[in-house]
Amino acid sequence: MPRTAYVNGRFVPMRDAGVAVEDRGLQFADSVYEVILVHGARLVDEAPHLDRLERSLGEVRMAPTMGRAALESVMREVVRRNRVRWGMVYVQMTRGTAPRGAAIPPDAETTLIIYARAIAPPDPEALKDGVAVITTPDIRWGRRDIKSTSLLPNVLAKQRAVDEGCFDAWQVDADDFVTEASAANAWIITPDRHLLTRPISPDILAGITRATAIELAREMNIRFVERPFTVAEAKGALEAFQTNASIMVMPVTRIDGQAIGDGKPGPVTMTLMRRYLEYASEGG
Amino acid sequence: MPRTAYVNGRFVPMRDAGVAVEDRGLQFADSVYEVILVHGARLVDEAPHLDRLERSLGEVRMAPTMGRAALESVMREVVRRNRVRWGMVYVQMTRGTAPRGAAIPPDAETTLIIYARAIAPPDPEALKDGVAVITTPDIRWGRRDIKSTSLLPNVLAKQRAVDEGCFDAWQVDADDFVTEASAANAWIITPDRHLLTRPISPDILAGITRATAIELAREMNIRFVERPFTVAEAKGALEAFQTNASIMVMPVTRIDGQAIGDGKPGPVTMTLMRRYLEYASEGG
Repeated sequence: MPRTAYVNGRFVPMRDAGVAVEDRGLQFADSVYEVILVHGARLVDEAPHLDRLERSLGEVRMAPTMGRAALESVMREVVRRNRVRWGMVYVQMTRGTAPRGAAIPPDAETTLIIYARAIAPPDPEALKDGVAVITTPDIRWGRRDIKSTSLLPNVLAKQRAVDEGCFDAWQVDADDFVTEASAANAWIITPDRHLLTRPISPDILAGITRATAIELAREMNIRFVERPFTVAEAKGALEAFQTNASIMVMPVTRIDGQAIGDGKPGPVTMTLMRRYLEYASEGG
Repeated sequence: MPRTAYVNGRFVPMRDAGVAVEDRGLQFADSVYEVILVHGARLVDEAPHLDRLERSLGEVRMAPTMGRAALESVMREVVRRNRVRWGMVYVQMTRGTAPRGAAIPPDAETTLIIYARAIAPPDPEALKDGVAVITTPDIRWGRRDIKSTSLLPNVLAKQRAVDEGCFDAWQVDADDFVTEASAANAWIITPDRHLLTRPISPDILAGITRATAIELAREMNIRFVERPFTVAEAKGALEAFQTNASIMVMPVTRIDGQAIGDGKPGPVTMTLMRRYLEYASEGG
């Protein structure tokens, strides 16, 4: 089936969907985006994703081209036209096309791109065995709370992990505290059975799945503390995992080659993963 | 006259020149670029620009789509077809189009974009009076030596300057040393008449115009020292200026509202500017 995207007011075949060479998203990473999980053709946590998109737009002073209700209906139409049952919707807004120059052009019109794609559901083997991660210095810019497409450091971190036969890289700040994975929030369960993840700040992205997982953990009376943790704490943890919209709750069983706990996904991680899957299947 | 660009092997009208929505340059800033000054239809410092492009490609592990001689001839053809006498050539290589995912796709083919544009020669008023800059914290990523399109922080810094009625922003590291402007290297002349600019490191881009200016300064027996300088040193300097390929040598006469020296472009700056213009008019 030919796929369909929505670009600047028109539904177009995916193969024709593009932007101009002077689009500022392409030339300056002057753009923000969201990736939303589609489960049973429904968009999971749609409202907080669109809240975050609005926040990102505000932080970079970009105006959306359409109101929220229209955006929601176009996203659903893209999912419908592409018959996506399990997958993701990608929404990107760039500052539009203008003769090249760093300053914000006063009259450029925001470029809007929406497309959807089926993706494989999380690999049951990975979920059963967990994945291995490396740690790597976090060299990203200072405003990681803005979900911008300035993602080259994330690409390089992820690729370093792949080169070492690992699933992802946990990025580490100058004081040896874990910030987050290349595109996911990082969590551990401490030896005294507290669930930890780093507080929201410009150092990390405020993950939507992170917020939902905190909510679900609280409902299940899991003892939760929001504080930074070091690489050493992570390696000495009982359990570790990472969360994002597309992989949801992914057990991490090895950090820099060292087994976490008994080297298998732990009970808290598995409980939270199952609960999150239920939550997602209810449409978020 | 309709403008012409070169994209992935074809000369196309500028209005049709574009990339796919899943181009990794657009989605991840997974791309590198160069801007080369065109003076009298010649490309100034073409060889060092292409050297730097090759270095950037190597650092992000991207393969060029064509050899250097072919690239040179396409750049010249783009300048010729667009009848650019004074302007710039823009060359961008992205990692190509692939289903979205942070890791480097093994089989994506590098996207190559080349276009040229006439630009206004430097404003004589600005050259005569100099320009004002603000200082702002440098929040860019840790590999500013790679000329990537991860430029959103540069956009925000430049726009902050524009909002304050200034020409540019000098970015400042955590220890209060100037790194560079939003897209130009920063220089001062100290009270004891030494020309200073920050040494090459991952903290700044190794400007091609910077390297040429160092060479010209040495030829003219200007005492030159490569070392970082603080904001306080800059404000107490006799002269200040910034360099890049398109604005060449631009006098800076005000920093955060404070006049530098007597508030007019100084003799060292003017000498270097005239010498650089001669150099550029000889084709670099």
